[in-house]
Amino acid sequence: MSGNTFGKLFTVTTFGESHGPALGAIIDGCPPGIEISEADLQIDLDRRRPGTSRHTTQRREPDQVRILSGVFEGRTTGTAIGLMIENTDQRSKDYGKIKDQFRPAHADYTYHHKYGERDYRGGGRSSARETAMRVAAGAIAKKYLASHGVQVRGYLSQLGPIELEVKDWSLVDTNPFFCGDADRLEELEQYMDALRKEGDSVGAKVTVEATGVPVGLGEPIFDRIDAELAHGLMSINAVKGVEIGDGFAVVSQKGTEHRDEMTPEGFLSNHAGGILGGITSGQTLRASIALKPTSSLRLPGRSIDVNGEAVEVITTGRHDPCVGIRATPIAEAMVALTLMDHLLRHRGQNADVKVDTPVLREV
Amino acid sequence: MSGNTFGKLFTVTTFGESHGPALGAIIDGCPPGIEISEADLQIDLDRRRPGTSRHTTQRREPDQVRILSGVFEGRTTGTAIGLMIENTDQRSKDYGKIKDQFRPAHADYTYHHKYGERDYRGGGRSSARETAMRVAAGAIAKKYLASHGVQVRGYLSQLGPIELEVKDWSLVDTNPFFCGDADRLEELEQYMDALRKEGDSVGAKVTVEATGVPVGLGEPIFDRIDAELAHGLMSINAVKGVEIGDGFAVVSQKGTEHRDEMTPEGFLSNHAGGILGGITSGQTLRASIALKPTSSLRLPGRSIDVNGEAVEVITTGRHDPCVGIRATPIAEAMVALTLMDHLLRHRGQNADVKVDTPVLREV
Amino acid sequence: MSGNTFGKLFTVTTFGESHGPALGAIIDGCPPGIEISEADLQIDLDRRRPGTSRHTTQRREPDQVRILSGVFEGRTTGTAIGLMIENTDQRSKDYGKIKDQFRPAHADYTYHHKYGERDYRGGGRSSARETAMRVAAGAIAKKYLASHGVQVRGYLSQLGPIELEVKDWSLVDTNPFFCGDADRLEELEQYMDALRKEGDSVGAKVTVEATGVPVGLGEPIFDRIDAELAHGLMSINAVKGVEIGDGFAVVSQKGTEHRDEMTPEGFLSNHAGGILGGITSGQTLRASIALKPTSSLRLPGRSIDVNGEAVEVITTGRHDPCVGIRATPIAEAMVALTLMDHLLRHRGQNADVKVDTPVLREV
Amino acid sequence: MSGNTFGKLFTVTTFGESHGPALGAIIDGCPPGIEISEADLQIDLDRRRPGTSRHTTQRREPDQVRILSGVFEGRTTGTAIGLMIENTDQRSKDYGKIKDQFRPAHADYTYHHKYGERDYRGGGRSSARETAMRVAAGAIAKKYLASHGVQVRGYLSQLGPIELEVKDWSLVDTNPFFCGDADRLEELEQYMDALRKEGDSVGAKVTVEATGVPVGLGEPIFDRIDAELAHGLMSINAVKGVEIGDGFAVVSQKGTEHRDEMTPEGFLSNHAGGILGGITSGQTLRASIALKPTSSLRLPGRSIDVNGEAVEVITTGRHDPCVGIRATPIAEAMVALTLMDHLLRHRGQNADVKVDTPVLREV
Repeated sequence: MSGNTFGKLFTVTTFGESHGPALGAIIDGCPPGIEISEADLQIDLDRRRPGTSRHTTQRREPDQVRILSGVFEGRTTGTAIGLMIENTDQRSKDYGKIKDQFRPAHADYTYHHKYGERDYRGGGRSSARETAMRVAAGAIAKKYLASHGVQVRGYLSQLGPIELEVKDWSLVDTNPFFCGDADRLEELEQYMDALRKEGDSVGAKVTVEATGVPVGLGEPIFDRIDAELAHGLMSINAVKGVEIGDGFAVVSQKGTEHRDEMTPEGFLSNHAGGILGGITSGQTLRASIALKPTSSLRLPGRSIDVNGEAVEVITTGRHDPCVGIRATPIAEAMVALTLMDHLLRHRGQNADVKVDTPVLREV
Repeated sequence: MSGNTFGKLFTVTTFGESHGPALGAIIDGCPPGIEISEADLQIDLDRRRPGTSRHTTQRREPDQVRILSGVFEGRTTGTAIGLMIENTDQRSKDYGKIKDQFRPAHADYTYHHKYGERDYRGGGRSSARETAMRVAAGAIAKKYLASHGVQVRGYLSQLGPIELEVKDWSLVDTNPFFCGDADRLEELEQYMDALRKEGDSVGAKVTVEATGVPVGLGEPIFDRIDAELAHGLMSINAVKGVEIGDGFAVVSQKGTEHRDEMTPEGFLSNHAGGILGGITSGQTLRASIALKPTSSLRLPGRSIDVNGEAVEVITTGRHDPCVGIRATPIAEAMVALTLMDHLLRHRGQNADVKVDTPVLREV
Repeated sequence: MSGNTFGKLFTVTTFGESHGPALGAIIDGCPPGIEISEADLQIDLDRRRPGTSRHTTQRREPDQVRILSGVFEGRTTGTAIGLMIENTDQRSKDYGKIKDQFRPAHADYTYHHKYGERDYRGGGRSSARETAMRVAAGAIAKKYLASHGVQVRGYLSQLGPIELEVKDWSLVDTNPFFCGDADRLEELEQYMDALRKEGDSVGAKVTVEATGVPVGLGEPIFDRIDAELAHGLMSINAVKGVEIGDGFAVVSQKGTEHRDEMTPEGFLSNHAGGILGGITSGQTLRASIALKPTSSLRLPGRSIDVNGEAVEVITTGRHDPCVGIRATPIAEAMVALTLMDHLLRHRGQNADVKVDTPVLREV
Repeated sequence: MSGNTFGKLFTVTTFGESHGPALGAIIDGCPPGIEISEADLQIDLDRRRPGTSRHTTQRREPDQVRILSGVFEGRTTGTAIGLMIENTDQRSKDYGKIKDQFRPAHADYTYHHKYGERDYRGGGRSSARETAMRVAAGAIAKKYLASHGVQVRGYLSQLGPIELEVKDWSLVDTNPFFCGDADRLEELEQYMDALRKEGDSVGAKVTVEATGVPVGLGEPIFDRIDAELAHGLMSINAVKGVEIGDGFAVVSQKGTEHRDEMTPEGFLSNHAGGILGGITSGQTLRASIALKPTSSLRLPGRSIDVNGEAVEVITTGRHDPCVGIRATPIAEAMVALTLMDHLLRHRGQNADVKVDTPVLREV
């Protein structure tokens, strides 16, 4: 059934397979008057782009996006925005051999059973290549949000066993890992080189923050903003877990420890990650995701074919040994798209609301 | 904006405040011919009901559900099902004092800013009392799923620092904790008694499994079944994290360790939690949630009032020292509702699909 | 599938059968701060209520609505509003005999084939009794719209062969026909009396106008306001046609005749019915509907039973000889609900828009 | 707000302006395994294409559609289908002069007020050029429906004052009018030639039939199939009225005349147009639309500009003197898309239903 649309008012609908002619998206409900150009979208697309370092797949895709509608004389018109990226580097020959096999931990087996038909080239629709369109759409949301004082930014918070913090945000975009700690880059490089030699892959954790978020976004009870963020973030390929604020750490927290107390100067802590009762509190919004290790490995794995016969699968071709490394711009995009949609939803219903109580931020 | 509906084909829309006249729900898109009675719904409602042990709120609610439409001569007719539970034990006097204060870690502050208006009695719409309707609706989904061979069941997998496993499923419904390990009950009793004496609260983790799930449920790319489960589970009050399968453990896993290999006899492991590429694989579906500690504490906390003035908040009234204890039936309900919706969505599109490849389960 | 919800941001979801325990609705996305009471809703409910004149069914229903949530201290809170009307006058014995027969022009045959199950009592879900909930929900929309300068009002524009105009709006609510022309009331009375003697029924046409509508409502291309109005109005029982503005008269109009020219003083005509390109123009919005004659007749008709055997159907029980007579408040409700939803949708996306061009009304 | 999507399970989302780089669509929820090619879509696109006779606009567009995803090795895969048509004949110079003027009866004025921004070239998004994508998507629905025994076909039922019937369906696609009566072609030619000389335009009526429709499609109460058809058909540019079956003729019909009696051999008449209670009855589905006269005229009309100043508007450029002439394939597409969506929705919920009662067709 139709499951290729995200959002309710500000919606993104995408299409495209890994080795088809093109990827595309339609952004609907975008406010008019936003100054937007293909170059604006290209910034984030280039951050996600493969082949930029030896630690990611060597597939070479310029990922050049075209705006086909909805933008006139440099500004959005409020009508549907059509986007397209043509696939250029399609080495179908790499993939032919897996036509009748199901790669372990991939979607081959489930797509085969669900649809009966399957574009086996590079995973077809189930390939992470699809996320390019999320990033392009997210760039529009980010630009609008920025003009309203909201900044969305993410970083790699863990690579395999290596836990990471942001010590310098300006560093994040200057290395292939989206790492914010200069002292750890060497360690990451070595870990990845060793991993590549092994032929194995590893998982990762990515954290996204949004600052300057207005208080009031989120629609209880089922469309709470945390529920929508979880939906958007869990829909990213390879994601197996989503946390808001302290996430699973809350399981062993006491109430007196967890509750974020308030004073007229602001909130005294932010265990909640900027969300109370499914509505943004105005504090920094914080969400993290767990990404599983890349499933495509040259190390042989047991599986079956379409006839149910046992086969040994060896995946050649070009793959990221850690899909998490390029996931930061994608996670940022999903957070931006969710906030954008809810900003519009909120003001649709509550345009008349006037409240005198001051808005609190962190102390 | 409208955020009180869950699902696309099999939808549940709810209403009701903690201390209003009644809670209600409309279940739309329910298949006709299901034998259903108020007694069927009452089973799960009673599992969630407060006041059944000294470890939960002493609020006494019979939570007697009435079916107002959509069921005729004992069977669903395919038309909208109306449900209602009248609130009986409403001690509004307990709550009057918090009219102008914002309880830390509660939704008071965010509802106030979002809507300008607020039913402050017991948290109004933001109260977990709302979940009674999720459970009632979930009971219908569970019954239909069971008739199709799908069983949904959950348990308490962690209480504060105490990690728990299911050693005996038959035990889970015989104790107030939904604990599946007889040897740990004493420890849980003691922990909760100590906690209550302190006047503090604690978080918890709940895990839900679904067995007999057909392969093929889930609608890539945004309505992947894991994304929808995350949406539904994160929408439960107090939930701050959602995991599918191994969840955050995947961050430090290697690809060779994580990938669930297949043989003609079945899957050799289930790190994925029964979902591949956002589609059910036919393996046991497994999801876990992290619930924050109860925010209502008799231990004073700093906050502000509607004028932005500093206040000290002490919450009296009747509260669960661990909201996670009663969350198991609610989590089961959200999983059942998600599977139900996707079962209908899947067969709407793929009714014509014929596949010969055998379906694998666990070895 | 779920089809019991109307609207996207301001949504109305209903349940209830003609002879079930109760009818109900959930209104979601309602702006907070609207002063609303059960008495406000009762006004329109009483306008639609049966048994108020000898020209409508003699079924006696007080149609007393209860507000179960979403309103606190007399004002909407922005959370879901639950409404309920208990059915009191249920003469099921009147209907038992049609259990296995399909009444011509009724939904018996199609419900039977679609669902396999059917509440045959008074048409069950397919009964026009369901429209009471549309009217109750519409009353909330009307009140909000009125506070924003928008007035929605309708009248009977044709009864069988008798075409009618509004000469005095104040007259419309003072007679059972919603007729706005005092000189025609006698004629209507006589026509209906003769019709009742025959035992036959007749069709009718109802027209609704909305004044003070802001320019800009409607979401091209598929959710144009005219398309949404057509959806809402055609969903009313017995409606077989919908017109916007001049409707089918445009077929034989010339372009020079149809186009509504503009001058700085305003529009010089209103053939378009206040909608251009699917967006409200600020002129008076005008829509009409065609209602088929009542299908329940005491004059025998040929049909079949559930076994496909020929039967002769005679419908006893209490019925309106012209369903159109009571349709005016229902049509007003659907127009009000559509405008309400689109007012919220529009401002969600276009909150930032500033336009200097003056808004035109009729000259 | 997002209004560019039609359907719930089988959805079509479109983008594109009259003079932008391209038009596009995403079809989501399409069943897998349908044999489809660009040539299949081209058939209906060519029926709608401009410049094929002297009675339609001379704009020359090949309207060559490209399938960008969702089809692999000639069959649909069940994933999102991306379509694109590049605009080739864009004479923007024709339109520059209307940049600051509002053409009477066009969407210029309303788009300007709604969005503040406006692509004035050929009406931008409000141009009927958008309908090419509806036709392309409809062609996929038609092909699937045909494989299930459902045929959708339309014809011109009135041109200005000239009422038309279908005497020979095979004739309909052989003339530029979609006229099914050879004896009237000459009259139509002459009428159109005279109209073009005058410089005026005229309205039209188009009727669509669907045969072989299964009984049971439609989701009461708001998503009745007639309500959804009205939504889809009224969303077509220039449409001002929609009728199901006898439409507005029912206003003066008696109940005994209107009700379609049933015998074991079949229905004895079809005043209802194949829909009872909002659900298809299995009879021939019949719907008609009223299209207003083309608004673009070379005969001067009074209007205002963006500053509210009086202007005289003369529309040059290339326009259909009767937009209704090319509307038949578009109306067919909307009927096909609606039936397709409801076929999927229906079987999602009612897959388990078994009914022995025979299905009736016309006698």
